[in-house]
Amino acid sequence: MSSNSLIEAFKATKYQLGGHGTRNVDVLKEAFEAVSSQEESDLYGTGNFIEAFENKMAAYLGKETAVFFPSGTMAQQIALRIWCDQKGINKVAYHPLSHLEIHEEDGLRKLHHIEPILLADKTRVIELDDVLNMNENIACLLLELPQREIGGQLPDYETLVSISQFCRENGIKLQLDGARLFEILPYYNKTAAQICDLFDSVYVSFYKGIGGLAGAILAGEKGFTEEAKVWKRRHGGDLISLYPYIVTADYYFDKRIHKMGQYHEDATELARLYNDCPGITTLPEVPVSNMFHVHFSHSKELIEPILLDLYEQTGIGLSGHLRVIDDQLCYFEVSIGDQYAGVPKRELEVAFRELAKRLKEI
Amino acid sequence: MSSNSLIEAFKATKYQLGGHGTRNVDVLKEAFEAVSSQEESDLYGTGNFIEAFENKMAAYLGKETAVFFPSGTMAQQIALRIWCDQKGINKVAYHPLSHLEIHEEDGLRKLHHIEPILLADKTRVIELDDVLNMNENIACLLLELPQREIGGQLPDYETLVSISQFCRENGIKLQLDGARLFEILPYYNKTAAQICDLFDSVYVSFYKGIGGLAGAILAGEKGFTEEAKVWKRRHGGDLISLYPYIVTADYYFDKRIHKMGQYHEDATELARLYNDCPGITTLPEVPVSNMFHVHFSHSKELIEPILLDLYEQTGIGLSGHLRVIDDQLCYFEVSIGDQYAGVPKRELEVAFRELAKRLKEI
Repeated sequence: MSSNSLIEAFKATKYQLGGHGTRNVDVLKEAFEAVSSQEESDLYGTGNFIEAFENKMAAYLGKETAVFFPSGTMAQQIALRIWCDQKGINKVAYHPLSHLEIHEEDGLRKLHHIEPILLADKTRVIELDDVLNMNENIACLLLELPQREIGGQLPDYETLVSISQFCRENGIKLQLDGARLFEILPYYNKTAAQICDLFDSVYVSFYKGIGGLAGAILAGEKGFTEEAKVWKRRHGGDLISLYPYIVTADYYFDKRIHKMGQYHEDATELARLYNDCPGITTLPEVPVSNMFHVHFSHSKELIEPILLDLYEQTGIGLSGHLRVIDDQLCYFEVSIGDQYAGVPKRELEVAFRELAKRLKEI
Repeated sequence: MSSNSLIEAFKATKYQLGGHGTRNVDVLKEAFEAVSSQEESDLYGTGNFIEAFENKMAAYLGKETAVFFPSGTMAQQIALRIWCDQKGINKVAYHPLSHLEIHEEDGLRKLHHIEPILLADKTRVIELDDVLNMNENIACLLLELPQREIGGQLPDYETLVSISQFCRENGIKLQLDGARLFEILPYYNKTAAQICDLFDSVYVSFYKGIGGLAGAILAGEKGFTEEAKVWKRRHGGDLISLYPYIVTADYYFDKRIHKMGQYHEDATELARLYNDCPGITTLPEVPVSNMFHVHFSHSKELIEPILLDLYEQTGIGLSGHLRVIDDQLCYFEVSIGDQYAGVPKRELEVAFRELAKRLKEI
């Protein structure tokens, strides 16, 4: 069966274990309900909507200033470009599974002529030794917290502190890919400002755990963000109106920022249920954010029909996307949002009992 | 007085002669009223919202395919990059007052390393001779119709045909900066497809005459637009959700595309009123679209107090922005939209009689 039918079957279930729900127009309408029709649009980066939110996020992240961007792709390429230009070095370092390396069609090279040095291997996060042993003169090191493509893993907080200290002593700028920064704060038991203080520049996203429409914030010192605004215009991101993204980002930030601890607990509980099934392991075994990966020791061809059947029989949807690793292995990603709390515990247990039973029969 | 007070005074008037009204949240809310809350978002360039609108605009422009972009800045840089890469030449030609040259912080050079050759001088549009006499090997010629920064002037349609023919014979790609394409169709008395047929690739905007929120379409053959989608991702413009711009673009396109003839007539009538005032000339004298510039043969220092006083006395706002040319001259831009039709003719005449009287007294 095609993966199309899995996503359809997933959407047709009564309860879905991940996410905040369908990305439909209601997400926009709910956020705009309390906004006055007379409120004026932002205008090319100025105006109340954008300036108020930039100031709010700068304060939350503990940075001097912040700039709203339509996308993280744009924000991060620009951050790296600024640091490269400042140092006169066109090399940066990041993880081999960084968003920049695998999801941006090589924009960093094709637009900015920046060469990335890939640190660590694909199975683990960047550790202090990777940075110490790097024999390259780089302008900037980018750390993604958590490392999404390996299930959302994190280095120890002490490792972050050591890497930050090394970078400062060696004139290397440190950029935080904080696409899921809010989601890891409960695990580190730190404020956003405490984490961001280790970095020179920080990007955060508003459509992962926050569940907004799209959009990103890039934060740092004023000289940095002023330059970022010029690059935003060059990239074609300085839109006459960005308020649809800003209003939704702001609304869902306020609605969900205090729920990140709950999402983490839910993820931990759910990962345990998965790990109790034969032939399933989660990565990481114990989640450090709202996300993890569910790995099957069987092929997609074997697992997909089991999931389809399970969704239909129990009304519980685990995931709409099953990704192939090779002929023998497959996995899917889980990101906990508002929906998990609405799943009755009894039905959840029934579904996992059924899943375990079917996997045992393979 | 500061120009801030002119914009405030303009906004406080009962009737404004240009535009569709304040760019406020109502623009979004009105467009979304009839959209179901359950309708699903587009998803990274796929889904019904974006595909249906791209198909609709491709058909309207008479091109094989179309891609929706968050901005024209992004769309046009990408169009030029594709043609440069295809030809292996990193030179293009355009007008010295092109948006690319004066409003994009040099993005074309800084991101794409493309060198622009400036054709014609700043006071007139590009003519056939400018193209024939160009001693440069370029990949692409960009024509902006109408040329906004000189009041929205146009070459003859026959000139367009000749330039297009020359470019085809000489392997030069022709890109249309159609930020205001819809607005010139009544003057040329051609369909959009007839104009676009002269060009290899076409950009149109949805927040000028159409009055949407933001966003642009880039249209051309399938090979071209497929490549444009890859570059859109590289630029950080391939957002997970673009529907706030698409829904509004579509809604206001349907609402206003048939009013462009009226806007042109209104602009012609209004330009006549201005030209009847002493010390005022419009550029062009007879508008060829919904826009023109109003030039005063006096300094901003002399004109601004007159306008402030006129707005307050008559309740008619002419413009909120008075631009300085030099110590002796200033001008403002007029773009006709829905508001003009709502201005009572008698009050309009009174305002212009007052304006003429005050200018005579200088």
